[in-house]
Amino acid sequence: MALIVQKYGGSSVADTDRIKNVARRIKEYRDQGDQVVVVVSAMKGVTDNLIGLAYDIMPIPTEREMDMLLATGEQTTIALTAMALHAMDIEAVSFTGAQAGIKTDAVHTKAKIQDISPAQIHEALDAGNVVIVAGFQGQTPEGNITTLGRGGSDLSAIALAAAIKADLCQIYTDVDGVYTTDPRVVPDARKLTEIAYDEMLELASLGAKVMQSRSVEFAKKFGVVFEVRSSLNDNPGTIIKEETTDMEGVVVRGASLDKNQAKVTLVAVPDHPGMAARIFKELADAAVNIDMIVQNTSHADEASTDVSFTVEKADLKKAQQLFEGLQSDIGFNEVATDENVAKLSIVGVGMRSHSGIASKMFETLASENVNIGMISTSEIKISVVINLDDSERALKAVHAAFLEDRAFD
Amino acid sequence: MALIVQKYGGSSVADTDRIKNVARRIKEYRDQGDQVVVVVSAMKGVTDNLIGLAYDIMPIPTEREMDMLLATGEQTTIALTAMALHAMDIEAVSFTGAQAGIKTDAVHTKAKIQDISPAQIHEALDAGNVVIVAGFQGQTPEGNITTLGRGGSDLSAIALAAAIKADLCQIYTDVDGVYTTDPRVVPDARKLTEIAYDEMLELASLGAKVMQSRSVEFAKKFGVVFEVRSSLNDNPGTIIKEETTDMEGVVVRGASLDKNQAKVTLVAVPDHPGMAARIFKELADAAVNIDMIVQNTSHADEASTDVSFTVEKADLKKAQQLFEGLQSDIGFNEVATDENVAKLSIVGVGMRSHSGIASKMFETLASENVNIGMISTSEIKISVVINLDDSERALKAVHAAFLEDRAFD
Repeated sequence: MALIVQKYGGSSVADTDRIKNVARRIKEYRDQGDQVVVVVSAMKGVTDNLIGLAYDIMPIPTEREMDMLLATGEQTTIALTAMALHAMDIEAVSFTGAQAGIKTDAVHTKAKIQDISPAQIHEALDAGNVVIVAGFQGQTPEGNITTLGRGGSDLSAIALAAAIKADLCQIYTDVDGVYTTDPRVVPDARKLTEIAYDEMLELASLGAKVMQSRSVEFAKKFGVVFEVRSSLNDNPGTIIKEETTDMEGVVVRGASLDKNQAKVTLVAVPDHPGMAARIFKELADAAVNIDMIVQNTSHADEASTDVSFTVEKADLKKAQQLFEGLQSDIGFNEVATDENVAKLSIVGVGMRSHSGIASKMFETLASENVNIGMISTSEIKISVVINLDDSERALKAVHAAFLEDRAFD
Repeated sequence: MALIVQKYGGSSVADTDRIKNVARRIKEYRDQGDQVVVVVSAMKGVTDNLIGLAYDIMPIPTEREMDMLLATGEQTTIALTAMALHAMDIEAVSFTGAQAGIKTDAVHTKAKIQDISPAQIHEALDAGNVVIVAGFQGQTPEGNITTLGRGGSDLSAIALAAAIKADLCQIYTDVDGVYTTDPRVVPDARKLTEIAYDEMLELASLGAKVMQSRSVEFAKKFGVVFEVRSSLNDNPGTIIKEETTDMEGVVVRGASLDKNQAKVTLVAVPDHPGMAARIFKELADAAVNIDMIVQNTSHADEASTDVSFTVEKADLKKAQQLFEGLQSDIGFNEVATDENVAKLSIVGVGMRSHSGIASKMFETLASENVNIGMISTSEIKISVVINLDDSERALKAVHAAFLEDRAFD
C-alpha cells in the first residue's frame, strides 16, 4: 500500500468520457489498496474560453478577478472527477485549492506556493476517500483565490506530494515520458527510464516542453521523486529524481533543439569596462529575455569587440529597434541580426566526470558540414547556435553519436 | 447616500454585453454616492450546461459534488461583473458565497442559510468598493460549498440585505414588477406599486412566478423591504413590505390562475374517523403534493362521503394508480379524475376587514356562466376550481370586477 499523488492535465480530462477513463485508472490503484490524491487541470479549452470572456469585458483584465474566474475551470473538473469515481462506488471527495490548504503569496495570476496545510487531505484519506484537488490554484492568508501561472497544476501535484510525504508522484500527460530528444524530429529517439532533476531542468529550459522548470525546481528542492507518463496507455514513464552515482555512467542524457531563437550581434563595440553591463541592462529594462551571450576577443588594432546574444524570435524586432536607437550613444558600428538560427544542446550529469564531450560534438557537426555560430557550456550542458536549415540534420547526427543503441540508460 | 443590495438574475447577465449593462446601472448608484452590494446568478444557460456534464457522468449526481460543480457558475459571473466595473474605473471586489460569510446547513443542493458574517463585506464597502457576491451558494461550518436550491440567488440577496442592514434591496428581473394578474392573459393588468408579504406569498404559492415563496418568507421574517423591478428599463418596480393599515383599503391586490391543476375525487368513502388521515398519508408517502382538499357532507343514507383534492397535473397518474390499488382496502366506490380544471384565486389583506368578497366573486362567475367545482378560502385568499376552458374568461371577469380602474393601489 502506497500513498500516491496523480496529476492529470487538461487533455486527459478534456470531456466526460476521458474523465471516466481517469476514474478507471484511479480505481486500479485504489483496488490494490493505495491511497490516492488526484490533482486535475481544467478541461481542455475551458481556460481559454474563460480568458475570452474576460477580454470581452476589458483589454487587460484585473488580476484578482482573473484568478477568481480561472479557478472555476479546475473546480468544475474536480467535481466531475469525484462523481465519476462515485459512479464506480469509489468513495471520493473534491477540494478546491483553498480547501486543500494550499497557501500562496498574493501575486495574482502567478502566485507562489508558500505553505500547504494538509490536515483536511489526511482526514479525508483516512476516512477512505480518494481526494481530488483542483490544480493551479491556492488561497492567500487573507482568503483571496490565486492561480499559480503556467504549469501550475504540475506544481500543485509536486507540492502536495511533498506536503503529504507521498511515496510516488505521477504526472500523467499525453506523451509516454521524457525522450532522448524530440521523436518527431528523430525517429530513433528513446524514452528514458530515469533522468536527474538537473538534466530535466536543462532540457526544460532548452525548450523540451514536457514540464515547466519551476515544477522541476520545486521537486528538486523538496526531493520529490516523480514520474512523467501517459494517461493513454499503461507504459511505464520516466522517473525524475536526484542524480545518483550510477547515473554518471550515462554521459549524455538527452539532446534538444530550440528553433525559436534569433541572434543579434553588435559589431565593433568600444572595449571599455562596463560596456557589457550597459548593453544587458538596456535589454533587461526593455523586458527582452536573452539566452546565450558571447563576446568575441577584442580586435587588438581597434580596441573594440563584437557582442552577440540570442533572444526569442518574438523579441527580435524590439531588440533591434532598441539598439539602433542607441548606436551613436554606445558607439558601435552596426546591429546585425540573424533569424535563421537554432540552438542545439546536449545535456548530461555524466559530463562532469567525462572529458572530450565538447570536441566529440564539434567533430560530429564538422563531419556533417554544420557551421557553429556560437558556443555556450555549463557543467552538464553544451549548446551551439547553428544555421536553422542545418538544425534537424545536426540533431540527428548528434543523437546518433551520443544517444543511440545504448543497452542501458 | 444609501446602502443598497441589488440582485441580477441569469438573463440579466446572460452575456458579456449584458454584464456591461449591469455594471453601468451599478455605476449610476455608485456615482450618486450609494454603497452597493451586488448579488448575481450564473449566466443564463451555464447552470444547465453544468448539470448536463454531471448527468453525462452519472444518473444521480452526488449532491456535495453537484454543489461544488454548480457553484462555479456564479463564481464566473462575479469575476466578470467586477471586471466590467473595473473597466469603468469603479473599484469593485468579488466574493464567493463562502468569502461573503454566508453560512448554511449541510443539506447539499437545497441548503438553508443559517448565518451571515458580513465583516468582509463591510470592510470592502468601507474601502470604497462595490461588493459583488455569488448568489445561490454558501459554505457549511466545515468549509464545504453548498447551494441553496431554486430561487437561491433571490434568497442570497434578501439574506445579505438583512445581515448588512441595507436601506433597500432591489431584485432585478425581466419583468417590470408584480402585476394585478398575468398581463399575457389580461391585457388590462396593472403593475402594483406595493404589495404585502402575505399577499406576495399567496400569489407565489398560487403560481405567479415572479419569486419563490421561501425568499418572500425570509424577507417577511427579517423585515427586509425589497423591490422587484426590470433590468431592461428604469421604471420603478413593486415594493414588497409588511402590510400597513392603509393597505387594507385595497380589498383585492391580485388575481391568479393556475392551469397546472388536476382534480381527483374518491367517491363514497366510508365515513369513519381517521379516513381522511389515511388517504392523505398515502399521498404523502407517495410524495404527491396536494393543494386544495374538499370533503363534501356525508350522504346521510350511506354513511359515506366524497373526498376531492387537487394535485399537479404531473402527479395525476401517480395519484390515480395509487388509489385504484387501494380501492378495496379503503372501501370507496370509484376514483374520478378531471384534468380539465384550473384554479382561480383572488388575494388581498383587505379581505380580513371586508365582507362580501366571496359572494361578489361567485356572482361574477355566475354572470359569466362559469361553474364552480371546488372552493377553498383563507383569511386573505379565495380560490375556486373551475373548468379549464372557462378559466381565462373567468380571470378577465374577476379582474374587471375587483382590480380595474383604480386610481390608487
